[in-house]
Amino acid sequence: MRQEILEMGRKAREAAHQMGMANSDRKREALEKMASALDQERLSIAAANRKDVEAAERKELGKAKIDRLTISEKVLEEMIDGLKEVSLLPDPVGEITRMWTRPNGLQVGRMRIPLGVIGIVYESRPNVTVDAAALCIKAGNAVLLRGGSEAFHSNDCLAGILRKALKEVGLPEDAIQFVQTTDRQAVLDLLGLEEYVDVMIPRGGEDLIRFVAEHARMPVLKHYKGVCHVYVDSDADMQMALNICLNAKAQRPGVCNAMETLLVHEAIAPVFLPKMAEVFKTAGVELRGCEKTMALIPGCKAAVEDDWYAEYLDLILAVRVVPDMGEAIRHITKYSSQHTEAIVTANFERAHRFVREVQSSLVLVNASTRFNDGFQLGLGAEIGISTSRLHAFGPMGVEELTTTKFIAFGNGQLRS
Amino acid sequence: MRQEILEMGRKAREAAHQMGMANSDRKREALEKMASALDQERLSIAAANRKDVEAAERKELGKAKIDRLTISEKVLEEMIDGLKEVSLLPDPVGEITRMWTRPNGLQVGRMRIPLGVIGIVYESRPNVTVDAAALCIKAGNAVLLRGGSEAFHSNDCLAGILRKALKEVGLPEDAIQFVQTTDRQAVLDLLGLEEYVDVMIPRGGEDLIRFVAEHARMPVLKHYKGVCHVYVDSDADMQMALNICLNAKAQRPGVCNAMETLLVHEAIAPVFLPKMAEVFKTAGVELRGCEKTMALIPGCKAAVEDDWYAEYLDLILAVRVVPDMGEAIRHITKYSSQHTEAIVTANFERAHRFVREVQSSLVLVNASTRFNDGFQLGLGAEIGISTSRLHAFGPMGVEELTTTKFIAFGNGQLRS
Repeated sequence: MRQEILEMGRKAREAAHQMGMANSDRKREALEKMASALDQERLSIAAANRKDVEAAERKELGKAKIDRLTISEKVLEEMIDGLKEVSLLPDPVGEITRMWTRPNGLQVGRMRIPLGVIGIVYESRPNVTVDAAALCIKAGNAVLLRGGSEAFHSNDCLAGILRKALKEVGLPEDAIQFVQTTDRQAVLDLLGLEEYVDVMIPRGGEDLIRFVAEHARMPVLKHYKGVCHVYVDSDADMQMALNICLNAKAQRPGVCNAMETLLVHEAIAPVFLPKMAEVFKTAGVELRGCEKTMALIPGCKAAVEDDWYAEYLDLILAVRVVPDMGEAIRHITKYSSQHTEAIVTANFERAHRFVREVQSSLVLVNASTRFNDGFQLGLGAEIGISTSRLHAFGPMGVEELTTTKFIAFGNGQLRS
Repeated sequence: MRQEILEMGRKAREAAHQMGMANSDRKREALEKMASALDQERLSIAAANRKDVEAAERKELGKAKIDRLTISEKVLEEMIDGLKEVSLLPDPVGEITRMWTRPNGLQVGRMRIPLGVIGIVYESRPNVTVDAAALCIKAGNAVLLRGGSEAFHSNDCLAGILRKALKEVGLPEDAIQFVQTTDRQAVLDLLGLEEYVDVMIPRGGEDLIRFVAEHARMPVLKHYKGVCHVYVDSDADMQMALNICLNAKAQRPGVCNAMETLLVHEAIAPVFLPKMAEVFKTAGVELRGCEKTMALIPGCKAAVEDDWYAEYLDLILAVRVVPDMGEAIRHITKYSSQHTEAIVTANFERAHRFVREVQSSLVLVNASTRFNDGFQLGLGAEIGISTSRLHAFGPMGVEELTTTKFIAFGNGQLRS
């Protein structure tokens, strides 16, 4: 364990203790100050970002990676707006979620408190530095940030600006710390800080997430991938089903809440699938179908077993015709990543059963899978989506960055 | 990975899926059937238990261990009553904890669902087999049980009776599985079943818990120890403080919610401590004090640094006089295990501040630390106490054996 990482952990624990007692006004003030500081420091942010972008260009990292790395005017505005939005969210800390009275007169309740110290290990987008730090601060936590080496100068510059804002309003600057070395050993050291870090949240590709889950000594909140399904029931409204499937697949195919497999009831398939194939053809979606699908859509490729497990993140879709909803649910139970599944139906009983029996982080009736996102569901902003069930299942907002302690008010109660 | 343990995991996952859809009546029926089956099988339980007790006697395991191992009539009655109690608890599964409507008309809510498969690794008391299985079943989970080798025959017999009851009401018997080998490798195999076990709960001594936390590949809900504090404020009611301190220390000293360190405000110490010392002397409590304490209590031993960290689980108490409440909170923040802390005071402002600033799983005002227990706090029954903050902090009842998924009801909403 390197001494400097250990020291960061110690400072974070101390800062977390102070942050946990900070009142809502102070935290809101800090977030507003961060927003105005990013606005004022446009030049230094641009200069730091240029170093990263130039290095990426020299290394020929490719256009997509360089795009993600670049802090354009628009990206900066989004960071500033994000800070303002988070500043306006209600403070979850101190909320007493329930309170009841025991037969002996003891009043017992649960009070929301911060989780403590949160570690974030992430890849290229520098906006994560700002977005993640904002949510952690709002919920009264301290955060240790470890960004990708390609964005080192940008992240370091952004973290420095945020730290200064904390200090200016009288909060501990060490509530936001950025790991200043880019080697992989520093990540391993961070993942070993079980005494000082309460939870680790990886943000990035599946490889990064698996690496963090493998090596972390503290709990990890994560999702590996989103193999999301839409089931079009025999009683679906045809136009609604066409709209939802197009939106779920093609509105933004490269994200985890996009549809990857379409399941269609055999009674509606002969009418629905040819129409759907037309729509998908126009949208440039490649289909890979089961035998019945291939019989209904001329020229459709055959799906193999691997297609049912695939997260394409692209304009490709696996399609299967099922004899009934029971088989659709069995397919989902076997192949889904428990991220997001939707049913399109006008039938109350089947909608009711689908919601009860499908155990994914979001189950929708008659709406697009693309809604599995903290902002879209009304959580305000999200720090990620969890597909493991412990602590958080689904999008994680400020509330998921807290826990509850029990409190009890008595007048001398003793245990007998 | 041994094949039979892997197979248990597979069966548990399948059983968990069915349990998650079981309705409340069926689960209640199963628990009632388990209670009557234990009643009817008294002879076979006694015979199995005799094997374990006789083996323990041959190995000369000591009276305390043999007592814990023995299923007396009283212990059996408690197991039966426990099953009946759990059967009557409200079913947490399916509860919609909140529901709201988005501006686009999408109704979004959170619905309580089971965690899935729960692993329990525990030591000698065979009642854990029954108590833990009951709570897991109530919350719609499957459970994998691994008890201590000394109680093998008792646990195996009890688990067999519970499985039969599940089958008789039409629920999958594999929702309760008992690991039938006693070697340590089986525990390691179980702790490696990350694909099939959603959470592991160790029950036993600190060594067992550390072993599980070290080797488990899935999340672990645990507490290592309880170094619980009572702070007697300058404005404490003298008699209430005496009663609470005696109850917290001596009512049952061998448990995790017993007081281990007493902090006393210096303004009240000269009157309070000599009286308290009298009471503790009568109760047979040995005191280890700071210098100021020693000056007020003739014959009091000196506390050394290790005493402030100690979980005595015995009639021993560390005592420190503090200049103010701030110092009491700093002491707690440094030495406490975040289990349970109490303040005794008549002062509203200090009670309010203590509750806000002390971040332990239960913070009490004017009541004994001994109340940190699921049954005492009104949760019905508990599967353990968590002192790590993720998912659960404090006693864990049936609700803590569940999670929530998001649900959404729409009429064709698309993401734009």
